[in-house]
Amino acid sequence: MVRQVNKTTIDIVKIKGDKIFRTQDTIVQEVPITLFLNGKEFVTLVCSPQNLEELAVGFLCSEGLLQSPDDLKDLKIDEEKGVIYVEAIEGEAEGRFLKRYITSCCGRGRPIFYYVNDAKSMNKVTTNLLVTPGQVWDLSDRLEEMSVLFKETGGVHNAALCTPTEVILFYEDVGRHNAVDKIFGRAFLNDIPLEDKILVFSGRVSSEIVIKVGKMGLPMIISRSAPTSLGLEMAEKLGITVVGFAKGERMNVYTYPERVLG
Amino acid sequence: MVRQVNKTTIDIVKIKGDKIFRTQDTIVQEVPITLFLNGKEFVTLVCSPQNLEELAVGFLCSEGLLQSPDDLKDLKIDEEKGVIYVEAIEGEAEGRFLKRYITSCCGRGRPIFYYVNDAKSMNKVTTNLLVTPGQVWDLSDRLEEMSVLFKETGGVHNAALCTPTEVILFYEDVGRHNAVDKIFGRAFLNDIPLEDKILVFSGRVSSEIVIKVGKMGLPMIISRSAPTSLGLEMAEKLGITVVGFAKGERMNVYTYPERVLG
Repeated sequence: MVRQVNKTTIDIVKIKGDKIFRTQDTIVQEVPITLFLNGKEFVTLVCSPQNLEELAVGFLCSEGLLQSPDDLKDLKIDEEKGVIYVEAIEGEAEGRFLKRYITSCCGRGRPIFYYVNDAKSMNKVTTNLLVTPGQVWDLSDRLEEMSVLFKETGGVHNAALCTPTEVILFYEDVGRHNAVDKIFGRAFLNDIPLEDKILVFSGRVSSEIVIKVGKMGLPMIISRSAPTSLGLEMAEKLGITVVGFAKGERMNVYTYPERVLG
Repeated sequence: MVRQVNKTTIDIVKIKGDKIFRTQDTIVQEVPITLFLNGKEFVTLVCSPQNLEELAVGFLCSEGLLQSPDDLKDLKIDEEKGVIYVEAIEGEAEGRFLKRYITSCCGRGRPIFYYVNDAKSMNKVTTNLLVTPGQVWDLSDRLEEMSVLFKETGGVHNAALCTPTEVILFYEDVGRHNAVDKIFGRAFLNDIPLEDKILVFSGRVSSEIVIKVGKMGLPMIISRSAPTSLGLEMAEKLGITVVGFAKGERMNVYTYPERVLG
């Protein structure tokens, strides 16, 4: 694995029509960066690890913790540890700290234990699921065909719960996470077994999506889009097959390819 | 305005090459839904207002608050008010409540005051900014040309801070919000005046993006993608011009079109 600051090169299985071959692919880096404000852990941002000074300052500006240049006293970045230490004036900014804390993480920040604890609390998926490349493309095509609201507005993501040959549930939502949560919710309410099902998804396969799929106990994600490095690291740990760019008789299989080649 | 459960039809200005005309466009609905768990306000999810039972249950499953069907005692939806009331068993789920609270909102949920307070605390943008359609397409094309990492990985969003003729800042990030925060951070650090600048963005113009742009004091967003209904409502309130689907000699101008036609 060749790791650079903003991308990673990994070995994948690429399928084009009836050709299956091992090759390399470039994956965008996604890393958790923990922000300490005046010595206290504030949030962990999952981000591309460049321009961390801009990210930390911009995040604190967005959350109202930095309002004038004088509010910022010091900023140190430890790239090795993935930590940013910010010193900002006490008083108004500090006074907003707690009140804003909830909001601050709502943008998309999260405490590091989100990743640590969630990963710990999940078991590796065990499954007998096998799909053919043709079934993968068929499910991906059907997701697109069903995406009426996307065709009309261009503003939603789509998620479907499928067997290798059938779409069982389909939801659209302006929020990538919401579309997946709607699947999770209906599967929970209807007590649908998930260890042999597949999430077919329009969005990028980031770490947060993989965590949800791991919690559902689904063994496979088929996406029409790209994965991130952290998403794939978690999929590897959780035993989840990630198929990306699945469309037009092409796909990249990033993890556990034996379930597609089976 | 014809409002349906999942989409809204609004009047827009459409520009194709040298043709400018008023027409209607279909915008995806984005609404805040507040979730009360056992009588306490838990989070507000910004979502597509369909399948709210699935969304609420799936969200609580994702956050570990519902683990077995017995955990869910009651669920009531008030679509008019945009509120969901969930009764879940006390004890383990309830015990996780506080510990999980931060995480719960980190997915993308947020307390309702996020929207209320943030909107209140922002002033309507005043600007003399004027751009020609040609300048809009040129900036959109340059954003795409600069998106090297996207071309390599397909896994990032891009944001640029621009004048009508120049790209001043450009950032790529796996997180839509991060790319915009990096612009905010650098502009803050370099004390760049923003009332005459433009955010050129690859991502969808949702309410959270419009709130950031309003806090920056930027008068215009040019996106290659779609806006949401709530994003446009906030842009209208905040005096921000939203241009969507800006590519290939086409664009939709959703709010304050006089700045583009000027």
